[in-house]
Amino acid sequence: MSDTANNPNRKSWLPVSPDSDFPIQNIPFGVFLTRDDVITIGTRIGDTAIDLGALHQLGYFDGIPLTDDIFLQDTLNDFISDGKKTWRLVRNRIAEIFDANNETLKNHEEHCKIVLFSLDEIEMQLPVQIGDYTDFYSSKEHATNVGTMFRDPDNALLPNWLHIPVGYHGRSSSIVPSGIPIRRPKGQTMPADAKEPVFGPSKLVDFELEMAFITTDANHLGEPIPVEEAEDYIFGMVLFNDWSARDIQKWEYVPLGPFLAKNFASSISPWIVTLDALQPFKVEGPKQEPEPLPYLHFKGKKSYDINLEVAITPENGEPVTVTKSNFKYMYWNMSQQLAHHTINGCNVISGDMMGSGTISGPTPDSYGSMLELTWKGEKPIKMKDGSERKFINDGDTVTMRGYCKNDKVRIGFGEVSNKLLPPFNPKKNKK
Amino acid sequence: MSDTANNPNRKSWLPVSPDSDFPIQNIPFGVFLTRDDVITIGTRIGDTAIDLGALHQLGYFDGIPLTDDIFLQDTLNDFISDGKKTWRLVRNRIAEIFDANNETLKNHEEHCKIVLFSLDEIEMQLPVQIGDYTDFYSSKEHATNVGTMFRDPDNALLPNWLHIPVGYHGRSSSIVPSGIPIRRPKGQTMPADAKEPVFGPSKLVDFELEMAFITTDANHLGEPIPVEEAEDYIFGMVLFNDWSARDIQKWEYVPLGPFLAKNFASSISPWIVTLDALQPFKVEGPKQEPEPLPYLHFKGKKSYDINLEVAITPENGEPVTVTKSNFKYMYWNMSQQLAHHTINGCNVISGDMMGSGTISGPTPDSYGSMLELTWKGEKPIKMKDGSERKFINDGDTVTMRGYCKNDKVRIGFGEVSNKLLPPFNPKKNKK
Repeated sequence: MSDTANNPNRKSWLPVSPDSDFPIQNIPFGVFLTRDDVITIGTRIGDTAIDLGALHQLGYFDGIPLTDDIFLQDTLNDFISDGKKTWRLVRNRIAEIFDANNETLKNHEEHCKIVLFSLDEIEMQLPVQIGDYTDFYSSKEHATNVGTMFRDPDNALLPNWLHIPVGYHGRSSSIVPSGIPIRRPKGQTMPADAKEPVFGPSKLVDFELEMAFITTDANHLGEPIPVEEAEDYIFGMVLFNDWSARDIQKWEYVPLGPFLAKNFASSISPWIVTLDALQPFKVEGPKQEPEPLPYLHFKGKKSYDINLEVAITPENGEPVTVTKSNFKYMYWNMSQQLAHHTINGCNVISGDMMGSGTISGPTPDSYGSMLELTWKGEKPIKMKDGSERKFINDGDTVTMRGYCKNDKVRIGFGEVSNKLLPPFNPKKNKK
Repeated sequence: MSDTANNPNRKSWLPVSPDSDFPIQNIPFGVFLTRDDVITIGTRIGDTAIDLGALHQLGYFDGIPLTDDIFLQDTLNDFISDGKKTWRLVRNRIAEIFDANNETLKNHEEHCKIVLFSLDEIEMQLPVQIGDYTDFYSSKEHATNVGTMFRDPDNALLPNWLHIPVGYHGRSSSIVPSGIPIRRPKGQTMPADAKEPVFGPSKLVDFELEMAFITTDANHLGEPIPVEEAEDYIFGMVLFNDWSARDIQKWEYVPLGPFLAKNFASSISPWIVTLDALQPFKVEGPKQEPEPLPYLHFKGKKSYDINLEVAITPENGEPVTVTKSNFKYMYWNMSQQLAHHTINGCNVISGDMMGSGTISGPTPDSYGSMLELTWKGEKPIKMKDGSERKFINDGDTVTMRGYCKNDKVRIGFGEVSNKLLPPFNPKKNKK
């Protein structure tokens, strides 16, 4: 079935500014709380949020095989389980309903009142119940930077890195949407000059600029997903901030990997942009040498040209953009990640989330974390108020944005933006 | 509220053999499919399974604050969310209903027909939807054995091990109940004499003898659980086989920890034995030296005396017990694990599962994995048919059992028993 929603010449009867992330070619999916305190599944065109639950009840999806309550849910998991064919039918239908040449809904004032919301009338929620969350480590530049700083500049990449899309399991429960503040974690660290570990708030809280993809039900336990089929099981993508406490990480991570250094919180942008909407932005990825093992071989373009940037905004201050990177720099692509993840028979289900790993580009101004940007704090970054940042301060807000753009259309992700609060104080903060 | 269900002198009117794991003092919780193809929550006394959904509908839990459908669900998550006070009320009530001196249900033939099942009429399911699964690494003997084999016998324990209950995140989707066969995984390995990695079935599939605890909703994101309160948030425990592919693990695990070496499958015993039922078996744990940081200090007994054993049964062969260990050997206890897990504010919810790590005892016949028992394969174990095992063969069934026992009562876990199938063959096995 063709994906007519991507027609770049289509205009919507809803207002869309030229620099919007959400033209009628995007049609992302999310979950929001409405002005009536109802949770619904929706999409967005320009700055208008659209209640898909209400649209469905009013009959606008007639003819598409959907259960009656598919959009009247507090997560997208069941809709994602319906599979790619259904996602496309729904996305194409939404494009038709809001096409500038279609006056059916446009001229139905009563329906418009029920279905359309301004952004200040809604509150975005986590779009999926995330079953399992996996984080990869797929930027060669990031792995090289970290290896250079902490191990050996002459052997920065570990022996397995060029053969395996290295990944590990993360914590699902502490993933929050954009807007939810995050607490500076406390924990054990081993200061450089100490003989015993000490306890206290992390002194080195960092962001990691990542993207993540959301899967549908992909395979039975025991059966791998071939690399060439992998994209059929990817619903869409979000921006992802893999918040990290570098001092906790350094002390805890041997031999089983990062744990409390990461699971205090991670945050995602609330609108899932479908892989279908990103098709015009497919590009070649970096050359892979040595050639990977056959189960990781793929044909054609499997990388995506997605511009990314991160800004830090001090409390009551002005934002400073600290890095500009691009998703296309990733050495291992999503198809390879998913094929690798399942090559042992591990089963992947609707609502699983897989992070890319920190997306560092080739130049020092495109690195994806403060650790790399300030090179362990040796090169602090200036804020507009004259203060310096080696890592993230209490009260700072970290905002990540991402978009694709060609000469006809811009498809964006909106933002993931979260403030860092001071550490938990049992006397003050306990409810 | 007192926990009257633990009265060691109580007898049931249901038959219970003296060596049963499930006397009326146990009252575990599980989920099963009935002869009528209905999924329900149940418990077990002797070899009789009891449908709690039906008991509730018949009014036997009147007076306890429970929603009507609390036991008519396919997971225990909502019941576990109800909290410790409710679990105790239900457990005490079940003890009363089946007390030898109570003839209400016993003499109601029609009710008995609805509520009681023989074991061959039911099929046990996974008892909870596991949100996040964490695995610890809390046996000092196991960590020392592994460090001795793979790193340095003189510095077998890594510097953080005596300060941190080291743990990492695992995969929830591939956790299966006892009885489900498991496929030998394929993957990348780096043979000792090779220059490039190779692809194929793992040659070193192993079990890991573990136990796991299931939590209830414990804290808000950002708020730690004090070590002294931790047990209030533990619903109960199961036997846990953390299946492992040692050759895949060796090549992939640096620097982010085990991934495909573990997530092809893990298995648990289907009856959750409540922490309440285990109270008579509390014991002191090993002395912790150096003294842990204050957030890990605890008073009283937090360890449990649980006898454990593992048997291997070759296809069409006889079982051989390959190890006998005990949960009390764990250096870090569950309260410390949970306090550590949340000290950074990580939130724990109903249905999360936390594994102990491999439970190796102090002697070579009490080690918790084939890796240790055969010392990397140097000392194979004989089967009754004369064949040898360095690791697990295709067709072998691995069975773990566990029980507590004093002079009055025996509380057991039943078993987790799973067969290892040959690797997936796309031509033969694909549905």
